[in-house]
Amino acid sequence: MELIRGPRPHPKEKLSRNLMEWFHWLLREAEIYDIRYPVKGAFVWMPYGMKIRRRIEALLRELHDSTGHQEVLFPVFIPYEFFSKESQHIRGFESEVFWVSKGGEGGERLILRPTSETAIMPMFKLWIHDYKDLPLAVYQIVSVFRAETKMTNPMIRVREISMFKEAHTAHADREDAERQVRLAVDIYKKFFDALCIPYLISRRPEWDKFAGAVYTIAFDTVLPDGRTLQIGTVHYLGTNFSKVFEVAYLKPDGSHEYVHTTSYGISERSIAAMLITHGDDAGTTLPPKTAPIQVVVVPIYYGEEKAEVLSAAESVARELSAAGIRTYVDSREDKTPGWKFYYWELKGAPLRLEIGRRDLEKGAVAAVRRDTLAKYSVPIKELVDSVKSLLEEVEADLRKSAWERLRSSVVQAATLEEAKKALEAGGWWRCLGAARISAALRRPRPWAPTPWGSRSTRRPTWAAPTSAI
Amino acid sequence: MELIRGPRPHPKEKLSRNLMEWFHWLLREAEIYDIRYPVKGAFVWMPYGMKIRRRIEALLRELHDSTGHQEVLFPVFIPYEFFSKESQHIRGFESEVFWVSKGGEGGERLILRPTSETAIMPMFKLWIHDYKDLPLAVYQIVSVFRAETKMTNPMIRVREISMFKEAHTAHADREDAERQVRLAVDIYKKFFDALCIPYLISRRPEWDKFAGAVYTIAFDTVLPDGRTLQIGTVHYLGTNFSKVFEVAYLKPDGSHEYVHTTSYGISERSIAAMLITHGDDAGTTLPPKTAPIQVVVVPIYYGEEKAEVLSAAESVARELSAAGIRTYVDSREDKTPGWKFYYWELKGAPLRLEIGRRDLEKGAVAAVRRDTLAKYSVPIKELVDSVKSLLEEVEADLRKSAWERLRSSVVQAATLEEAKKALEAGGWWRCLGAARISAALRRPRPWAPTPWGSRSTRRPTWAAPTSAI
Repeated sequence: MELIRGPRPHPKEKLSRNLMEWFHWLLREAEIYDIRYPVKGAFVWMPYGMKIRRRIEALLRELHDSTGHQEVLFPVFIPYEFFSKESQHIRGFESEVFWVSKGGEGGERLILRPTSETAIMPMFKLWIHDYKDLPLAVYQIVSVFRAETKMTNPMIRVREISMFKEAHTAHADREDAERQVRLAVDIYKKFFDALCIPYLISRRPEWDKFAGAVYTIAFDTVLPDGRTLQIGTVHYLGTNFSKVFEVAYLKPDGSHEYVHTTSYGISERSIAAMLITHGDDAGTTLPPKTAPIQVVVVPIYYGEEKAEVLSAAESVARELSAAGIRTYVDSREDKTPGWKFYYWELKGAPLRLEIGRRDLEKGAVAAVRRDTLAKYSVPIKELVDSVKSLLEEVEADLRKSAWERLRSSVVQAATLEEAKKALEAGGWWRCLGAARISAALRRPRPWAPTPWGSRSTRRPTWAAPTSAI
Repeated sequence: MELIRGPRPHPKEKLSRNLMEWFHWLLREAEIYDIRYPVKGAFVWMPYGMKIRRRIEALLRELHDSTGHQEVLFPVFIPYEFFSKESQHIRGFESEVFWVSKGGEGGERLILRPTSETAIMPMFKLWIHDYKDLPLAVYQIVSVFRAETKMTNPMIRVREISMFKEAHTAHADREDAERQVRLAVDIYKKFFDALCIPYLISRRPEWDKFAGAVYTIAFDTVLPDGRTLQIGTVHYLGTNFSKVFEVAYLKPDGSHEYVHTTSYGISERSIAAMLITHGDDAGTTLPPKTAPIQVVVVPIYYGEEKAEVLSAAESVARELSAAGIRTYVDSREDKTPGWKFYYWELKGAPLRLEIGRRDLEKGAVAAVRRDTLAKYSVPIKELVDSVKSLLEEVEADLRKSAWERLRSSVVQAATLEEAKKALEAGGWWRCLGAARISAALRRPRPWAPTPWGSRSTRRPTWAAPTSAI
């Protein structure tokens, strides 16, 4: 493999100028998501978007299945009677709840789940009898509903969160539950590493924790415009839910004890973060693990070369597919090669192979990385190895540059004054207190009564990207 | 491979005595589905049930993806304004609709989708411009909601249908739409053949067609107790929806024409039909294509044999897994082999391998078919081929015996009198008119004004099982 053109990535001007405008352009032009559905905060996943989603869902399943979680599916309806049992929980969610009613019929008062703790606990009560039933870890990927009154935003702030992966676990004691919290954090690191999304991990201040939690650990990323986006949360719920739902277990010594529970969630917001993090003015780059098409093959021919070039393209694709690489030959006849380059750069296929007669005569094809547009000549006899190593390079570089951007946008501030100054200059921050000072300072929400000084132990954790799965 | 014990299947006494009681027993004991969730018509999919479901969903995706359908995801909320546009549709569904409201907030009147024609048409209007956009075929696998007032029944008649595969297509003319109807029927045949479920295909009488359809073609199966169960429907919708939603396209000649649409659906009821069709008093047999575990390996050892037998079991499992066969070694130490036989017969693993020292000395393992309990000695050197052929036999025989039962329970009746007589004797029927006379006679619903005589062309089609996919 030989470099024949150095990196010359697309600019990020449009993206920097108005990130959300760019994002809506990407969703529309790359045919990922249609924002014209006529209900506030409800949107349509288009075929290409669904193909990306399926890969993300498969990754979530793999990460959870391989770590002792079992997939389940609970109903979307929760009786209000159950939903309102835990007092913090109901106070936190009540204003955002969608009610369900059947015309003319009384009886049950039902809500659409905003999260499933209160649907799952009544079943945990039936499933858990003694210590041998613990720990119990289940998860589901479902729609949850929150009647956001704030401005909604496609894929980022929606009223039907349609890809909510929520896990719920029960444990014999606090120690085992906190071991699960650490496991969940580890799973989420692996997940975001596969998406090449950088993150800050922090324990949320009291006012910002999950309604009903003892404490919440959150993952935030920083978007190119400096805004932070919460992309995952892990909650230690203590016995707050098990007490009100009476979920207790029999210990070996014959006594009964309430279980300790945790829950943790990730949504389609992670997909939005991925598309934006790796975006530029020509579209986006999908990290190879999440790309429905990892390698697009574009045949380039004139006149009589057609049969030979097409057959070479098909043979290259067969070889790559046999090696487990998701490959697609774009052999459309009514589109020019240039049009196809544009199309697949928009859609984010991480690697493009250009196959023309001159390359074939040299026993080679040209490979172009989507992220840098660097171009290589790849001998056909080294095809699979070269493509694999290029895909690995794309992934490593996407992750590296995203982490560098996040690190450079975070300012170390020792005092609140310094933090304010840094914020005014447009940077992010790393402080000695809780995370999300930025958010706290920007929004008119009371974050008292917890004084900064007392929370110096809750500093953001610098999470290094773990090896991708 | 040598037969060492002939077939001696489990009896079907409990199952025949009270089918629904048996079904609820199966769902509970095999840990498929929990019917104790505290909302009418809403149930919980347990981990083993989800594993079966995932295989069924993968099969549905494969069948649709490979025939020109693209997966999408639409919101669950439909504005009442859209839902009520098509007059037949609203009349048919209005009484079953769940309304959504947010406490204290006016504005939009929303319903939970009972089916998605009226969510999809407004987007088809945006997506379809000219003849080159046609045909367009999309599908989604989602929850839909119907406020059944009749008695609900786990997995069979539910208020949240949580695995509704609905496809929606648009075409240039009636001819192309009816070609799609035939394609859909063909896809559904392949699907039910993979589940080894026998079916009758019939055009529904006017009073029983989908609300808004020009006509409906339905798949019914007959349960062991003689009851029929509708397991799939295909609708030709004509221009009924495209006219009210103004979905038209530009023809090559410059004129505009309304598109012709179809829709077709399958739900988790197909899973219920599968579990019941292949059930007996010890549990069920899962057809190999849908079994999360196709081969369960049970090691049998005494004392010091343990290490040797376990290692042989693991090696057999590795070989089968490498050949793409879903294999699991049940090496639990606190359970006896007999307990494990019972457990996996309940759960329906189609093939069991018993591995003991004496078999190993002969270079063989014992294989037991779940459906017939016939037992074979399989030389280890022929392992993969023998297991594959046994799984194929299980599948073929499940399908064959299910079709034989359906055929024998159907009575040919030339007149309404004959049909009545056959019904009284407990059989099903095949008649010269429309299907579901049985249902029509049993329930107090007017099936006039369409006289029998005029519908002699709408006879049920005898569908032979096509080769399984």
